Amino acid sequence: MTRTITLTTDFGLNDPYVAEMKAVILGICPNAVIIDITHEVAKFNIRMGAYVLASAVPYFPEGAVHVGVVDPGVGTRRRPIVIQTKQSFFVGPDNGLLVLAAEKQGIMRIHELANPRFMLPKVSHTFHGRDVFAPAAAHLMNGVKPEEFGPEIRKAVQPEFAKVTQKNGALVGEVLHVDGFGNIITNINEKEVTQSHVKAEVSVDLAGHKLKLKLCQAYGETKPHTPLALIGSHGFLEISINQGSAAKKFETKPGDKIKLLLQGRP
Amino acid sequence: MTRTITLTTDFGLNDPYVAEMKAVILGICPNAVIIDITHEVAKFNIRMGAYVLASAVPYFPEGAVHVGVVDPGVGTRRRPIVIQTKQSFFVGPDNGLLVLAAEKQGIMRIHELANPRFMLPKVSHTFHGRDVFAPAAAHLMNGVKPEEFGPEIRKAVQPEFAKVTQKNGALVGEVLHVDGFGNIITNINEKEVTQSHVKAEVSVDLAGHKLKLKLCQAYGETKPHTPLALIGSHGFLEISINQGSAAKKFETKPGDKIKLLLQGRP
Amino acid sequence: MTRTITLTTDFGLNDPYVAEMKAVILGICPNAVIIDITHEVAKFNIRMGAYVLASAVPYFPEGAVHVGVVDPGVGTRRRPIVIQTKQSFFVGPDNGLLVLAAEKQGIMRIHELANPRFMLPKVSHTFHGRDVFAPAAAHLMNGVKPEEFGPEIRKAVQPEFAKVTQKNGALVGEVLHVDGFGNIITNINEKEVTQSHVKAEVSVDLAGHKLKLKLCQAYGETKPHTPLALIGSHGFLEISINQGSAAKKFETKPGDKIKLLLQGRP
Repeated sequence: MTRTITLTTDFGLNDPYVAEMKAVILGICPNAVIIDITHEVAKFNIRMGAYVLASAVPYFPEGAVHVGVVDPGVGTRRRPIVIQTKQSFFVGPDNGLLVLAAEKQGIMRIHELANPRFMLPKVSHTFHGRDVFAPAAAHLMNGVKPEEFGPEIRKAVQPEFAKVTQKNGALVGEVLHVDGFGNIITNINEKEVTQSHVKAEVSVDLAGHKLKLKLCQAYGETKPHTPLALIGSHGFLEISINQGSAAKKFETKPGDKIKLLLQGRP
Repeated sequence: MTRTITLTTDFGLNDPYVAEMKAVILGICPNAVIIDITHEVAKFNIRMGAYVLASAVPYFPEGAVHVGVVDPGVGTRRRPIVIQTKQSFFVGPDNGLLVLAAEKQGIMRIHELANPRFMLPKVSHTFHGRDVFAPAAAHLMNGVKPEEFGPEIRKAVQPEFAKVTQKNGALVGEVLHVDGFGNIITNINEKEVTQSHVKAEVSVDLAGHKLKLKLCQAYGETKPHTPLALIGSHGFLEISINQGSAAKKFETKPGDKIKLLLQGRP
Repeated sequence: MTRTITLTTDFGLNDPYVAEMKAVILGICPNAVIIDITHEVAKFNIRMGAYVLASAVPYFPEGAVHVGVVDPGVGTRRRPIVIQTKQSFFVGPDNGLLVLAAEKQGIMRIHELANPRFMLPKVSHTFHGRDVFAPAAAHLMNGVKPEEFGPEIRKAVQPEFAKVTQKNGALVGEVLHVDGFGNIITNINEKEVTQSHVKAEVSVDLAGHKLKLKLCQAYGETKPHTPLALIGSHGFLEISINQGSAAKKFETKPGDKIKLLLQGRP
């Protein structure tokens, strides 16, 4: 059995918050292996948190516990939950953050974190990451069952994500994420690209820029500083620049629209 | 027994410095569990380091070893020390960094790190984190006693922190820290707020801004982008904006004065 | 035997990439201890990556596996390799990143990573860190031998580093790295400084600034905010400012030239 507990938050690394969560986990489950997914989710950006979590989770061993804390509603009526899937556990607020990753694995059941026995003795209204979610994750790793935490919940809050639609001979999607290299990751997946009969070249309309781009397999297939398109390592259409920042050049940010022109069969 | 060694420094994460400390620790104590509190203390800011350390340490298990390195005087006459408290050990420079956290736990004894047997073979004048403090922490975790490191020290250097004072019908404190969310954390604690007979609303004078703020328990009790006051998760009065940055709006930085108007009993 | 696997990349900490590498490692070698050297190597800067790796590696225990990924040529013809030295293993692209650190330990043999048995089932063209290097590192830690990964390679690609030369009564070197404190680290080493008969003071020409600097042992030997020279903790000549940023004051960046005037024997 793995001993891995992962953390995904918008806390940043300048403050003691992440360390306090780790301290609480190690106090309850001393042999946990804690792995940071990232703590640099844009503040309160549930959607970016959900994307990052859904990207990383599939690579973790079965039985891992994934804690997510992007939680603008902390201390209000949003519920703290645990989700058990066919492969792992998710712990965090019921605000859509966890569901994208959890649904990929098949959700088995969802319980509210309501039992004070599995929280810190004093629960603040502002930091459930430390006082509720960290102890829950550690207790799950110690073998506590989801039903011991509280009542079952039939359906978790769904995240708001745009779907890819087809309109006027184009697939219309949007920018999911801009990574540290400036790669523009869209929500158009590999299958949709294939079905659009795109071949060596794609025509896209990206936030007002009309581009014809070589469809590559690796960044290095074009000359340095040249734009290209490819299916990125998570299976989504990506607009990139070899050794440069596509997001900077095309002034693109998450949420921007992207149109991919469909190509007629010959 | 815990195997946790924590690190708090102003080294940042771009350079190999933190990793060299971890390498040295693992070379001496291979089963140590090393947890970063933060490496983003503002350069040479002993006071911020002391605050962060004192915030996080209470959540760590008994027996943990806490290493702090914010050390503008490295290589000069300031002494390297180990502090044993009733719950844990602290290792770092004798410049006030460790004392705030250590005093909360009850200091039992302080020793100078003078024994070269527990340092790297070659000690640089510029990087005691790697050459003196990391090996000391690892040896402590291996069971070496504080008195084996060097002579006892009667009193550690005290950190310079402003105390909260009462003046002209107001509590006068200052801003301790601004966190990554822009929350303004002051040095006025929960007990002082209670004793000032504050109820649903507080009146503060924050760096020239006169504010009347709702005293909340959670950020989400006000509308998004609305300022509020609350007792934060470490027990201090905090000025915040729901889903926004109070520090930005009120142009506030650590060290700024804050006045909290006392309210007469009815 | 150590269980340490280190990671050095230019991935940053905002994206899920580093976590995916760790997930893959823990899936194959659950008891690995993963240590980040840094993920903030400037994007595509093989030279900075090589410097950071070569700085940190000597402090790690024998038997550690060091993974480096600064890989502008990912998915093209550059080869993925494993280097075995007298003390440890290195895994990454054959582009010069690993060689500086490896040569210091004595290279024993180099093999190409060609055996799909030791890669993820699906290898992307854009993320060999996760699909090729992480699994290779975990398998090495599990005892797989370098020759099981693929054919032997006679010589790795050499990194491009300037050498220190002597010209017109001066040593001519260059700036290797600027650290987070603004210390300017040059490629002129301790031995070269000693051989130049420098004593209490050094005269340097740094990117157009002609400076006479006290040769110190510790930053605190000069008054705060005063420039100085010293041999840094990795054995190279460093231009610094006590409690300030020399790089900012002298507008210096990696690659800038530095001249150190030789001093005649009396």
